[in-house]
Amino acid sequence: MTLPSLAALERHLPILQWSRAYTRETLTSDLVAAVIVTIMLIPQSLAYALLAGLPAEMGLYASILPLVGYAIFGTSRALAVGPVAVVSLMTAAAISNLGITDPAEYAAAAITLAFLSGALLTVLGIFRLGFLANFLSHPVIAGFITASGILIATSQLKHILGIEAEGHTLPALVSSLWAHLPETNPYTLVIGVGATAFLFWVRKGLKPLLARIGLKPRAADLAAKAGPVAAVVVTTLAAFAFGLGERGVDIVGTVPQGLPPLTAPRLDLDLVAQLLVPAVMISIIGFVESVSVAQTLAAKKRQRIVPDQELVGLGASNIAASVTGGYPVTGGFARSVVNFDAGAETPAAGAFTAVGILVAAMLLTPLLFFLPTATLAATIIVAVLSLVDFSVVRHAWTYSKVDFAAVSATILLTLGFGVEIGVASGVALSIALHLYKTSRPHVAEVGRVPGTEHFRNIRRHAVETHPAIVTLRVDESLYFANAAFLQDYVYDRVVGDDAVRHVVLMFSAVNEVDLSALESLEAINTRLDSMGIRLHLSEVKGPVMDRLKRSHFLDNLTGRVFLSQHEAMRALLPDDGRDAAE
Amino acid sequence: MTLPSLAALERHLPILQWSRAYTRETLTSDLVAAVIVTIMLIPQSLAYALLAGLPAEMGLYASILPLVGYAIFGTSRALAVGPVAVVSLMTAAAISNLGITDPAEYAAAAITLAFLSGALLTVLGIFRLGFLANFLSHPVIAGFITASGILIATSQLKHILGIEAEGHTLPALVSSLWAHLPETNPYTLVIGVGATAFLFWVRKGLKPLLARIGLKPRAADLAAKAGPVAAVVVTTLAAFAFGLGERGVDIVGTVPQGLPPLTAPRLDLDLVAQLLVPAVMISIIGFVESVSVAQTLAAKKRQRIVPDQELVGLGASNIAASVTGGYPVTGGFARSVVNFDAGAETPAAGAFTAVGILVAAMLLTPLLFFLPTATLAATIIVAVLSLVDFSVVRHAWTYSKVDFAAVSATILLTLGFGVEIGVASGVALSIALHLYKTSRPHVAEVGRVPGTEHFRNIRRHAVETHPAIVTLRVDESLYFANAAFLQDYVYDRVVGDDAVRHVVLMFSAVNEVDLSALESLEAINTRLDSMGIRLHLSEVKGPVMDRLKRSHFLDNLTGRVFLSQHEAMRALLPDDGRDAAE
Repeated sequence: MTLPSLAALERHLPILQWSRAYTRETLTSDLVAAVIVTIMLIPQSLAYALLAGLPAEMGLYASILPLVGYAIFGTSRALAVGPVAVVSLMTAAAISNLGITDPAEYAAAAITLAFLSGALLTVLGIFRLGFLANFLSHPVIAGFITASGILIATSQLKHILGIEAEGHTLPALVSSLWAHLPETNPYTLVIGVGATAFLFWVRKGLKPLLARIGLKPRAADLAAKAGPVAAVVVTTLAAFAFGLGERGVDIVGTVPQGLPPLTAPRLDLDLVAQLLVPAVMISIIGFVESVSVAQTLAAKKRQRIVPDQELVGLGASNIAASVTGGYPVTGGFARSVVNFDAGAETPAAGAFTAVGILVAAMLLTPLLFFLPTATLAATIIVAVLSLVDFSVVRHAWTYSKVDFAAVSATILLTLGFGVEIGVASGVALSIALHLYKTSRPHVAEVGRVPGTEHFRNIRRHAVETHPAIVTLRVDESLYFANAAFLQDYVYDRVVGDDAVRHVVLMFSAVNEVDLSALESLEAINTRLDSMGIRLHLSEVKGPVMDRLKRSHFLDNLTGRVFLSQHEAMRALLPDDGRDAAE
Repeated sequence: MTLPSLAALERHLPILQWSRAYTRETLTSDLVAAVIVTIMLIPQSLAYALLAGLPAEMGLYASILPLVGYAIFGTSRALAVGPVAVVSLMTAAAISNLGITDPAEYAAAAITLAFLSGALLTVLGIFRLGFLANFLSHPVIAGFITASGILIATSQLKHILGIEAEGHTLPALVSSLWAHLPETNPYTLVIGVGATAFLFWVRKGLKPLLARIGLKPRAADLAAKAGPVAAVVVTTLAAFAFGLGERGVDIVGTVPQGLPPLTAPRLDLDLVAQLLVPAVMISIIGFVESVSVAQTLAAKKRQRIVPDQELVGLGASNIAASVTGGYPVTGGFARSVVNFDAGAETPAAGAFTAVGILVAAMLLTPLLFFLPTATLAATIIVAVLSLVDFSVVRHAWTYSKVDFAAVSATILLTLGFGVEIGVASGVALSIALHLYKTSRPHVAEVGRVPGTEHFRNIRRHAVETHPAIVTLRVDESLYFANAAFLQDYVYDRVVGDDAVRHVVLMFSAVNEVDLSALESLEAINTRLDSMGIRLHLSEVKGPVMDRLKRSHFLDNLTGRVFLSQHEAMRALLPDDGRDAAE
């Protein structure tokens, strides 16, 4: 094998890079991290499967082979892949749209969704299309995550109350909960509220307590992560001891024991067509969330994430989920931070976690029979409420009304119409607002800052100008959406100002002139010519100039193209004017 | 009435402006132009109604009250409103999608379409939303018009051959023509080919001939416009004399005589929902075409078109069409040029044309009984082939591959999938390509042009730099789609270059920094800080600076913000370095 092909192989299989430097110390670190993440992941994986509307064991299955897939193809050293809240919610929304009632069909749809999502991610990665995710702006993502957190927490209230409730939007959920409220089961309510209160206390109160009794802060922090396991153990024992299952408390019931099953996605055209759009959304949202966590953690250790390779890693992970009875997975925020803090040094920690979950699936599942779903709901509620963060709304309001509009619309539409419409409208709205802004560009009339070669806005700075020369700095690339605007602007400025002999368009901020804008420039040139005014350009950037040279515009231009605005003024100022202005 | 409200009234009713200065000379000019346009419009209006799949008289009805409506509300002095080829084709495509077989229902749908289009245009005008039309780029429009011309000419071949043929895409039309080719009627073929050849000769050969026999060029030009009328008269007489109707030649038949009927749009929700998208497209395409003709003609006389008022004018025109048995109308290119050349000075010429067509509808319709549809098809074919212009494709190829992609895709998709998909894809593609370009902005590393205060790309100019200072000029506004790109770019540039102590981002071309980009700048600042590199900004524009001041970015910035790049270099260059570089 020659060297270049080895390098290429390493780029596509990051495991080849880190595994060569794998030492006994790295092994120890990874193992410790894996144990801690496993303890955290067992209740989470069961709970998120529940949130997705799937049997609990599918959460476990989604936490085994997918982690191994990512360990081979992923570039992050600390990302903990598996079921996560937002993607589970999106899975539930996508499949419930299909109107499936048979649980086996529902599970098959989830498996197909994981496969589609995996295939999409892999294709995007291979064709280096990761940049597409950039069209999800930060405000849209932040708004979407916050709204999803609220939707998820609300959707879990039915398990806390022990009632039925339907819906994938906030109004539907709330009205359904309200209608069924009288059916509340008191035993379920006690367990649900108790578990929720306990988990909140673990989060806020346990750590200081452990610190007071002498535990080191990091150890205290990690011990607190075992809170959900404690809640699971205690409530399961209570349900068993007091026979709560017979008193109407919903319990998990039989969870199959053993290896994950081998499964295959169902690729009939109808199902694929219906799941394609949700699969795209799940892939992109999952990728964006995952990469942002991975980059944050990598930066702390001066490591590098390769986004296009991350797509392949997550793609492999989801394909792995689809062949072993899982459902869509991605990198989880909280879990990855725990993995990092616990000392994970390579993706092997993820593979060791997979072994931990495998052991749980083979040995522990019978113990889950009496586990109340209310406990799982409590772990979800406590986990997702940390996603809800309205500070971005306030921040956006101060910084830019356009960003504020995007984040508010995303939150309201996600709550009001569900995750798919919410995120799609958010993206569409941010693109539309961006296009609207660029369609009415800022144009500044500029003059020279005295004693310099620098030209600034005449309305903001005390600058020198000459009545015969109008210099307009166009603060936007010129393209079809603003070509007509520029034409009107120039015409409005010079009409009725008989002193004007030269118009200089200062192109320092013009990064592109497309064909539509070229035609507008030609129209401006002709129109000014008929008014006895010459048109000049200054500070035209290289790439723009290259392109203009390929058209006839420069041949017909009545004036000149100047390298700098300073040069333009030197050349155009009449001798007497030069005295006056300089 | 106070003066300000009079001005406002004049703005909304342009007729109040020009009618006050109306003289006997203006009247004569307008009347002459109206006679010529009427002669041109009679066969055209019949032919375009046929193209739209409507009875011939609806073309006449669409050429009466709509012209009066525009004369009252429109701002162009020369625009000739009425049925036009492209809008007629779009009308046919829109209504045939509904699967209507009853001709009365079909006509009712066309009337509703005119109303919807009129209402939309008026609303867009009142809310000053004319800028939306700017999102139709020149390449998309040009490609769409060319493809429409081909589709229209092909769709008329069935009338020339005297056969049946269906379809709204080029493949469908061609295969349908091919299947029915054996049914060709020889009499129809003779008339169709004869009329087409005659009309081509009138266009290319008659003018020189008339000039040779002593007619003035302008008179010769105008006489040639009467060619279609001559073709109509001759072929109608032939059909009558030889009883061609009984030999299978399709003739127009009974055209009702009298005033246009009073009609009302059918506003049931189903129909409106189905026609809404086509109505939007017809409105925008009609508006863009109309405004571009109007602006070209106005510029020749130093007059002004107010695009938002044009929307109201065209809106009134279409609403007028919907209440008098017409169908969607707009300003026609060829007809407006004739109107202008014939000396029309005010919109009154349009109103006089309306009177001419009204007289025709009341007196001449019985004479149209034997008019062969092949003759009308011939006038359409000759008229629309002048729309077909592939030069824009070549032009775009030289100038910009992105514009080339937009124009080619629009042509191919319009031909292959019909007008609606064609124009929608063209718009979507040009927006997508624009976003793609701005998502990977041009970033240039710059240095000082010796002896000046001017900074240019180090790859294009011989400039001075210093190893400790990297200045990157970002040639694009920073927003969500390129925020991540900049982050990667800066990091790639400085990693491994240990000499770098300062990074200056030169913001001369940055017209906006949105919230996503602000977060990226914060990340760059933090990351460079941890590498011992300070981040500075230079040449930040006023509006961008205003916004940055409202965030915490400037408080945390490790470096400074310089008014000009020259100042930045002065401040950052070490003393020894300054000697070396200056």
